[in-house]
Amino acid sequence: MPVSFRKEIKDLVAYKPGKPIEDVKREYGLSDVIKLASNENPLGASPKVKEAMLKVMEEFSLYPDGNCTELKEAISKKYNVKPSEVLPSAGSDEMVDMIAKTFINHGDEIIMADITFPRYMDTARIMGGTPVLVPLKNWTYDLEGMLAKITDKTKIIWLCNPNNPTGTMFSEKALLDFLKQVPENILVIYDEAYNEFVTRDDYPKDSVQLLKDYPNVLILKTFSKMYGLASLRVGYTIASEEIISNINKVRCPFDVNRFAQAAAIAALEDQDFVKKCYDLNKRGKEYLYSEFEKLGYEYIPSETNHIMANVEKNSGEVFLELQKRGVIIRPMMSTWIRVSIGTMPQNETFIEKLKEVLAPLGGCENK
Amino acid sequence: MPVSFRKEIKDLVAYKPGKPIEDVKREYGLSDVIKLASNENPLGASPKVKEAMLKVMEEFSLYPDGNCTELKEAISKKYNVKPSEVLPSAGSDEMVDMIAKTFINHGDEIIMADITFPRYMDTARIMGGTPVLVPLKNWTYDLEGMLAKITDKTKIIWLCNPNNPTGTMFSEKALLDFLKQVPENILVIYDEAYNEFVTRDDYPKDSVQLLKDYPNVLILKTFSKMYGLASLRVGYTIASEEIISNINKVRCPFDVNRFAQAAAIAALEDQDFVKKCYDLNKRGKEYLYSEFEKLGYEYIPSETNHIMANVEKNSGEVFLELQKRGVIIRPMMSTWIRVSIGTMPQNETFIEKLKEVLAPLGGCENK
Repeated sequence: MPVSFRKEIKDLVAYKPGKPIEDVKREYGLSDVIKLASNENPLGASPKVKEAMLKVMEEFSLYPDGNCTELKEAISKKYNVKPSEVLPSAGSDEMVDMIAKTFINHGDEIIMADITFPRYMDTARIMGGTPVLVPLKNWTYDLEGMLAKITDKTKIIWLCNPNNPTGTMFSEKALLDFLKQVPENILVIYDEAYNEFVTRDDYPKDSVQLLKDYPNVLILKTFSKMYGLASLRVGYTIASEEIISNINKVRCPFDVNRFAQAAAIAALEDQDFVKKCYDLNKRGKEYLYSEFEKLGYEYIPSETNHIMANVEKNSGEVFLELQKRGVIIRPMMSTWIRVSIGTMPQNETFIEKLKEVLAPLGGCENK
Repeated sequence: MPVSFRKEIKDLVAYKPGKPIEDVKREYGLSDVIKLASNENPLGASPKVKEAMLKVMEEFSLYPDGNCTELKEAISKKYNVKPSEVLPSAGSDEMVDMIAKTFINHGDEIIMADITFPRYMDTARIMGGTPVLVPLKNWTYDLEGMLAKITDKTKIIWLCNPNNPTGTMFSEKALLDFLKQVPENILVIYDEAYNEFVTRDDYPKDSVQLLKDYPNVLILKTFSKMYGLASLRVGYTIASEEIISNINKVRCPFDVNRFAQAAAIAALEDQDFVKKCYDLNKRGKEYLYSEFEKLGYEYIPSETNHIMANVEKNSGEVFLELQKRGVIIRPMMSTWIRVSIGTMPQNETFIEKLKEVLAPLGGCENK
């Protein structure tokens, strides 16, 4: 009898990465390829990040500070919380996994939207939890529907606001109404990976304030999106000292690498860069809205750096045709695609290639 | 009722990092501080690593290749295995955690030495496994004792060769005799984080060959020690395709950061650097042996880049006194310390300060 694997992971599907840009170039003989598939910052990162990286460039052989002391201090100052209420992680990805290991027992029910960040479900299943899916309503979190699913077995409710991949949000009022009705023994994860891109006024402006009234809330944030540090893997959580100290027990001691720590501190300081990215994203969003409208395609108004649109053709096919033309997007269910908002020239190239792709497929001419 | 945490993590103790060098300098008013506490490479990393890092320096905002395609290829070439038999990870740390999530069910027994890498035990407990500790014999793995502990519930046996923190090894013959007696449904993890430092001839020279006869073996390796990339977090596993594909299911999709991937490929290419570090380590080891002998202190002959010695005084006290003098080592049980082998000037400073510290405590004068 050979070695056996846990039954909980039997049906998990490993992540299948897209082709690297270099492979797409080689395969199709292209010199330029634009990737608008992973919601990466098209302006890169703040120039201060490079400076910070170069400063620690000779420290290859030294383990990172296992406590992330300086990074915790920088984050705690920004949000006016204690360093002991902050826990950096190797991207949100690692934190989602650590949350599962800290909280989820076999048979616990984990409530989440049906179309949201897929790691919520995978990590619940790894720990033997039961994902309870609540369909989006008008592409938006159905908070009432989530409340209705609460049972004695509910352990965690995952909220992603604004949501990936739909880009939709719910308001501060809706969030407060929701939290009032959630029993205090249920952990509510409030994932705001994309909050820096939000343009609507009714978005929860200061989620950290929630922690005062709701100690069962955990706020999840990342440096991968607006701060442009996806390459380095760094995110963080703000929550009560009790929650933080328990998650800390399951953490790999040196999870946030030395370069990520230095880069994140520098990135946090450069709010001018954040403003510049915000403006560019808003402009790109409005441009893409207007182009989708001209093409007659439905799209979902977005509060993030990506937009979902219904191109009315099989999205897998559209994805491949765009890739051949040097534009990589993300195919979603049926005829929906998700495109990250790029620089203006990237957005224009995307629209140009999309028109090329859709025309021969019969998607554009009558619109 | 507030949120509750899993009972499995209740008694886990979070990692307590040592003071950063900068803090020690500040606290004691020192300009130079030597850290010989974490088995870091005193020569840093290959110069090729810096070149490789600078090449990807503008790619901050791009996610790493989630498949580690090029790194897998480089490793598979070096060991003459298939890329599908290789899985990079964010240091060995992350792999130890992933192994636990892939294999350990509640109640499974996990056999390990009593004095070895502590993450084997922590990750077993997180998953509800029962650590079964087998005391070292003469500071060395008691493989017979481990075999004697095998039951129907045994899921994993952890071997660290050479062992951290004792630096001791077991021979190829002993390993083969052991593997022949382990039932094939038990996973044997062979962790050779320090194998590049081994000087003895009877060490298992080519562990990858074991996989042909023993598909229940998993080989765990790291770039943190000999290759000097501890700052970046990168290690890897070589095992059967079936084992690799199952671990891959529980992996965070972008676990190995972009800079770590580039650095590891460059590091692997520079075997001259490895030779230089090997020679320096051997020389430092012989120097420290001879100094411990002169001082009349017992030490454990080491096949790694660290040595355990019995300084016959409370190790916590010796640690603090050395730290005051700008040398950071690792206090172990009772009167034992572990010191990493540094550059020759670092080794000499360590011995000089150790003599200072031990003399007034009554440890040196009569020896």
